[in-house]
Amino acid sequence: MAEFKTDIEIARAANKKPIAEIGASLGIPADALLPYGHDKAKVSGDFIKSVRDREDGKLVLVTAINPTPAGEGKTTTTVGLGDGLNRIGKKTAICIREASLGPCFGVKGGAAGGGYAQVVPMEDMNLHFTGDFHAITAAHNLLAAMIDNHIYWGNELEIDIRRVVWRRVVDMNDRALREIVLSLGGAANGFPREGGFDITVASEVMAILCLSTDINDLEERLGRIIVAYRRDKSPVYCRDLNAQGAMTVLLKDAIEPNLVQTLENNPAFVHGGPFANIAHGCNSIMATTTALKLADYVVTEAGFGADLGAEKFFDIKCRKAGLKPDVAVIVATVRALKMNGGVAREDLGTENVEAVAKGCANLGRHIENVRQFGVPSVVAINHFHSDTDAELEAIMDYARSMGSEAIVCRHWADGSAGIEDLAHRVVELAEAGASQFAPLYGDDVALFEKIETIAKRIYRAEEVIADKAIRDQLRAWEAAGYGDLPICMAKTQYSFTTDPLVRGAPTGHTVPIREVRISAGAGFIVVITGAIMTMPGLPRAPSAEVIRFNDEGLIEGLF
Amino acid sequence: MAEFKTDIEIARAANKKPIAEIGASLGIPADALLPYGHDKAKVSGDFIKSVRDREDGKLVLVTAINPTPAGEGKTTTTVGLGDGLNRIGKKTAICIREASLGPCFGVKGGAAGGGYAQVVPMEDMNLHFTGDFHAITAAHNLLAAMIDNHIYWGNELEIDIRRVVWRRVVDMNDRALREIVLSLGGAANGFPREGGFDITVASEVMAILCLSTDINDLEERLGRIIVAYRRDKSPVYCRDLNAQGAMTVLLKDAIEPNLVQTLENNPAFVHGGPFANIAHGCNSIMATTTALKLADYVVTEAGFGADLGAEKFFDIKCRKAGLKPDVAVIVATVRALKMNGGVAREDLGTENVEAVAKGCANLGRHIENVRQFGVPSVVAINHFHSDTDAELEAIMDYARSMGSEAIVCRHWADGSAGIEDLAHRVVELAEAGASQFAPLYGDDVALFEKIETIAKRIYRAEEVIADKAIRDQLRAWEAAGYGDLPICMAKTQYSFTTDPLVRGAPTGHTVPIREVRISAGAGFIVVITGAIMTMPGLPRAPSAEVIRFNDEGLIEGLF
Repeated sequence: MAEFKTDIEIARAANKKPIAEIGASLGIPADALLPYGHDKAKVSGDFIKSVRDREDGKLVLVTAINPTPAGEGKTTTTVGLGDGLNRIGKKTAICIREASLGPCFGVKGGAAGGGYAQVVPMEDMNLHFTGDFHAITAAHNLLAAMIDNHIYWGNELEIDIRRVVWRRVVDMNDRALREIVLSLGGAANGFPREGGFDITVASEVMAILCLSTDINDLEERLGRIIVAYRRDKSPVYCRDLNAQGAMTVLLKDAIEPNLVQTLENNPAFVHGGPFANIAHGCNSIMATTTALKLADYVVTEAGFGADLGAEKFFDIKCRKAGLKPDVAVIVATVRALKMNGGVAREDLGTENVEAVAKGCANLGRHIENVRQFGVPSVVAINHFHSDTDAELEAIMDYARSMGSEAIVCRHWADGSAGIEDLAHRVVELAEAGASQFAPLYGDDVALFEKIETIAKRIYRAEEVIADKAIRDQLRAWEAAGYGDLPICMAKTQYSFTTDPLVRGAPTGHTVPIREVRISAGAGFIVVITGAIMTMPGLPRAPSAEVIRFNDEGLIEGLF
Repeated sequence: MAEFKTDIEIARAANKKPIAEIGASLGIPADALLPYGHDKAKVSGDFIKSVRDREDGKLVLVTAINPTPAGEGKTTTTVGLGDGLNRIGKKTAICIREASLGPCFGVKGGAAGGGYAQVVPMEDMNLHFTGDFHAITAAHNLLAAMIDNHIYWGNELEIDIRRVVWRRVVDMNDRALREIVLSLGGAANGFPREGGFDITVASEVMAILCLSTDINDLEERLGRIIVAYRRDKSPVYCRDLNAQGAMTVLLKDAIEPNLVQTLENNPAFVHGGPFANIAHGCNSIMATTTALKLADYVVTEAGFGADLGAEKFFDIKCRKAGLKPDVAVIVATVRALKMNGGVAREDLGTENVEAVAKGCANLGRHIENVRQFGVPSVVAINHFHSDTDAELEAIMDYARSMGSEAIVCRHWADGSAGIEDLAHRVVELAEAGASQFAPLYGDDVALFEKIETIAKRIYRAEEVIADKAIRDQLRAWEAAGYGDLPICMAKTQYSFTTDPLVRGAPTGHTVPIREVRISAGAGFIVVITGAIMTMPGLPRAPSAEVIRFNDEGLIEGLF
């Protein structure tokens, strides 16, 4: 290998094409692109409508084994596979999520992909990008202000101020805002009550934006948000406050998908970024469905491992959007499988074929799970320079034993040239037309049974336990007409169980439900099985302390 | 007059040119423009540096009599005069402030100018525009999060949590956030303390952005912000938390001036928008100084009436930026002068020459005041259809009696054709080179004496009264090296006195100082003389309730 370059050095050296050229490669006329600088653009809603009747391209989901601190490189593989498919002559677009601003100031991070499989402009994507998250923040907080304003002016809707469930949001890691008392200061400022802030990606507005099929659907969904309850427990909706129109106006640009490019100048839609625990963790339906109209292949990803991310992609996003995924790619790394096999992080550099083989049980479980949705899959081994041939062989052998196939991918080091094999296999699977996609459960199954179905069939749990209050709540929602909603599980991403330390492929465990919430606008029931943090804090030495422009005018410390 | 059209109808019918053409008219190359859509762009910092050594054009300030509910049309006249100067062959750019998002959802409002003297795209300018205010909000709140995070992790700087003066901001009218208790919820969330939110335009970051000469100056000023005090009352600065670098990175695009156009396709810089009470109320120095390098004439405006807006423009912005204004235009209307003459709002439609003549005392005071700064002025009568000839004559007579001139301007109805006379007069005054601009007081005058100078010479007060604590504070700042800062008066805009109901040209009153604050980063001492609201509330029936997209896809209710 030649001189080692960091992600940001590679990104800065990118030979970007004007965004209009990228759009043209997908047949998007220049006047249907709203430019944000020379390398970012939004695709106009009118153009999106105009291609609605075209046939869809093939849809490829990139998912992964349970994440470990060793990293598995799901986004990197999504980007790499997109470039690889383009390389072998398939017109391909990728669809990924936008980054949240807040966490960038906590620990060094950011980046969309890595090595020679990245999306650019990296710096803008990790800062304000096209302003979508700011618009979502504003729309969310407008509704919050209107709720307290309604209470202040007489509370005609009889909102119980102890039961306002609509918090505020900020796109910042700010633990001091997790729990506050607001409306203090006397009669001029309202009625004191408890409240708090979540980070913007946890906003139901984010989930709604990502699940809306167009701007009318967006407005209707916003109207359906439950913001509070009365003393008699009856819900108060966003539409009762007439806030959905103004919120939609605030989101008029945010709902249009963003187009950028990979390092190899292939089109990338980067749009939306809901939490993958209390929300469904996928980029917007608008981006995915638009890309499918414009490209032969669309490669997209889902949050966390396949037990959470792929399940929600299939059961929530695909169900709502009517998407039929053709192939799933399950990303694994030697290092992450080693950790699943019990190796400590500091020992990852040492060859350990046995641990890899042991850790493969985690991979196997995900292969089986994806199969349950009727979607053919292939394993992508995201190659690290420390991997040994014997370790790689162990994974490939295991995949074969599962009736699958694992392919070594070197896109991080070599870009599209390193991932041609995977690209060919994906095309083979897609063009065979073998996918028989169906969600895991039907709309009409009882809510608790839906939870049990996910817990038993995907997590391989023995049972789901829940207090009477929770079961009553689920039945109450069924009675109120919400019985057809899918489930959005909020569970640790590190394990099939609710204990983050249990790696591998456990069985026979119990899934205790701590709480259930309804996202009536987004259209799912959130089932919380552990401590869910919707507002992160900053670490002792936040990266914000070292982020700055250096003397060459380059941003330091952000990556 | 033909069929009456609303501002928004006129704005929507605008025949906009591509923003690159507008830039080209000022000699800005296309690659120095960062487009935001097809009708908005930011001017690159590198280009701005490259024109730094050019000669400046002429600088025209548009200010006004004390505002009344009748409206005086300062922005409309700024836009109209810009178009008028272009019409008579002077290459002219206008510089105005950006609109705040929050108030748009309270009462119908927005718009930049009115009638046939507007800046477009109106809708974007009243929504997210190019995201500057969102970036300011994020930078401000990052610093806030870093303060509480520092306290959480051990408080090495020994911040007194009772004396954190850096609040949070949101670009929303949200009275419930005025006073809060934060960091509740136990040990994981920090140390409970009192805090609150202001609206973004009240952020010192906004004032700093508008007073910075370049990105390095911005970073230094951010570092100088005082965020809290220790128990021994010594200040803790933003730079003690190392936040200024990351804040600057967040503001990298926001500091670049925005270019848009008037209805007549003339260039308009719209950049920054600090409060005109606790801050100086002018668009950014970067926009004004850049425009001066590119145009023969630059027309800009200042907030409120000349007693506040022009005084701060001269004593803060011009002092800091080394600007030498050539001409001031004082906007008045028959209706507003009638109100100053004692007429109630409901009687404004009836001719009342006597009231107009009486109200002219307010105008006269502003003419005298502008003269004190050595700047020649002319009065623009912004014509309303209900004005009678006799009323207009009364103003013109009065102006002559003051050694000035008042010119009737019909730009609202007729665009640039209606304001040619004023344009010619402005050119005459500017080219005569009569301006002998000097700020009202020197840097080295004692702080209390600076306040007295403004109160006595501009407001014509008899005396300034202040508690010992306030005088001690001013002396303490002098001892700490802040004695050379200018004063930023926060006073009601409706009167020369501190009583909003006293119209006309009062004398002999007292100016009581309620509080003094330091904006060490922006570089001024804020002197508060009444109740200052830094977080507005929404009205009983906020316009947000009726804002929506109608069936034609047009935004309703925002204007």
